[in-house]
Amino acid sequence: MALLTVGTVAFDSIETAHGKADRVIGGAAMYIGLAAAHFTTPIQLVSVVGDDFPTAELRYMESVGIDLEGLQIKPGEKSFYWAGRYHDDLNGRDTLVTELNVLADFDPVLPPAYQKTAYVMLGNLTPAVQMRVLDQLKKRPKLVAMDTMNFWMDVAWDDLMKVLRRVDLLLINDEEARQLSGEHSLMKAARQILRMGPKILVIKKGEHGALLFQQNSVFYAPALPLEQVTDPTGAGDSFAGGMMGYLAMKNRLSEDNFKKAIIVGSAMASFCVEKFSNARMKELSGDIIRDRIRQFADLVRFGNPF
Amino acid sequence: MALLTVGTVAFDSIETAHGKADRVIGGAAMYIGLAAAHFTTPIQLVSVVGDDFPTAELRYMESVGIDLEGLQIKPGEKSFYWAGRYHDDLNGRDTLVTELNVLADFDPVLPPAYQKTAYVMLGNLTPAVQMRVLDQLKKRPKLVAMDTMNFWMDVAWDDLMKVLRRVDLLLINDEEARQLSGEHSLMKAARQILRMGPKILVIKKGEHGALLFQQNSVFYAPALPLEQVTDPTGAGDSFAGGMMGYLAMKNRLSEDNFKKAIIVGSAMASFCVEKFSNARMKELSGDIIRDRIRQFADLVRFGNPF
Repeated sequence: MALLTVGTVAFDSIETAHGKADRVIGGAAMYIGLAAAHFTTPIQLVSVVGDDFPTAELRYMESVGIDLEGLQIKPGEKSFYWAGRYHDDLNGRDTLVTELNVLADFDPVLPPAYQKTAYVMLGNLTPAVQMRVLDQLKKRPKLVAMDTMNFWMDVAWDDLMKVLRRVDLLLINDEEARQLSGEHSLMKAARQILRMGPKILVIKKGEHGALLFQQNSVFYAPALPLEQVTDPTGAGDSFAGGMMGYLAMKNRLSEDNFKKAIIVGSAMASFCVEKFSNARMKELSGDIIRDRIRQFADLVRFGNPF
Repeated sequence: MALLTVGTVAFDSIETAHGKADRVIGGAAMYIGLAAAHFTTPIQLVSVVGDDFPTAELRYMESVGIDLEGLQIKPGEKSFYWAGRYHDDLNGRDTLVTELNVLADFDPVLPPAYQKTAYVMLGNLTPAVQMRVLDQLKKRPKLVAMDTMNFWMDVAWDDLMKVLRRVDLLLINDEEARQLSGEHSLMKAARQILRMGPKILVIKKGEHGALLFQQNSVFYAPALPLEQVTDPTGAGDSFAGGMMGYLAMKNRLSEDNFKKAIIVGSAMASFCVEKFSNARMKELSGDIIRDRIRQFADLVRFGNPF
């Protein structure tokens, strides 16, 4: 099944304890697309770039099954640019530069072929833009997932609440879950958030894995302990892309498939952080991905204790 | 099989976001003993208290299968006392008072019945005292596990290295693993530490679960997302007690039994934090414990993703 996604396609400059990468390819929709395309195609990508964005990167995206009909390319304008420096423990980061450029007045337009897509992933963007995408859908999708961030809770609370009421699955990190709910305990936070609209909540905890809250169950996806995290940028988007790509491929929304999808998402995130930008994502094959998913399964498998 | 443990039996005063408990029963060996006795008896407890320690608590410990022949009771002296205040997120704490009292010149003496015990858990104490216990063993145990803390890395590094060379399993938290190894990545930290003596390493990550490193495998035990953590005191010791009690009960040191033991330890820790002091530990039955262990198993169980 096709997966529709909206989000940034951008340039990033990144500094971590392990090095620097200057003006490399980034953006939520780019990471979501590359991760998801390993499981399902086409990925219908809705975004905007300037004419400074490398054609080779766009051709690469198309070559793996990402449809770019929904990508607006603005002549004479510049792509979104973000520069940041990660703290040594990689859990925090400081933004050094944000240049909105084409994103400043981004108005997403869904081509007709995208308007009845069953699986939708709203990458982190202004809630108003996420809403504009939902408004153009001609048919209620089977599954709408969204990502967001603290910033929108601070500056666009009302819009955020409106979008939340229209999504099935929310994907945020632990800090964001605490801010959104006002609860420190993630169990209590989940209960609050599941009253805001989404029926399913994924709380990402970075190197500590992810929690999946469904109607009557909680599931804990581990994170693979890694030798080295080179660049955390895009990990959450690769997680979302792997998860949604897997669900669209399965096209059956069972409780167990959501659990498996979180494991798949965790595996895709674990690749993403191994190299700067999308370098590691471009090297992956089906075999490499299946091996990694098996490692995740082994990581938590044990016999009956009794 | 019997389990020999050495550690404190003490008074604690505790403040958390959820309340205060003044001069309640605490101590590593007390928590280890209560947790372990659900799986195996006798627990041979080596420790020291003053004559201020409540007889009723000692009788209770005996009633669940804790042998107190190795507990020294010092007439006219006072028991070890610790007072602390946990930070609101419960991950950090400040020590307000430490009164060593009887612990200042504690010289552990193993009764003859303890000297050939096959399972040994060295609770967090001066490495020299942990060594004194090992020195009195007449037969190499099947399994020696130990806990320690940052403080001993700062003030007793050489002694700590000596004890480490004589233990099979080390149980520490993530911060301690980083300090002990000088590595931030827990994978790298584990590799370093497994060169210091122990063949097995457990890294506890509090609300984020625990990692088990064996010769050729890594295992991730989740932590149960809890509604409320009332008092984290003793969680690590309850973890160690549950783990070692289970291993002594099974009496077969397979790779899978270590994984199951970590799950059992996690379950016992999850009870411990629900109430102040040992209150919750005293309420447990075999049925309650089995239910909780099943919850942990469910938390990470998923079907084949392929």
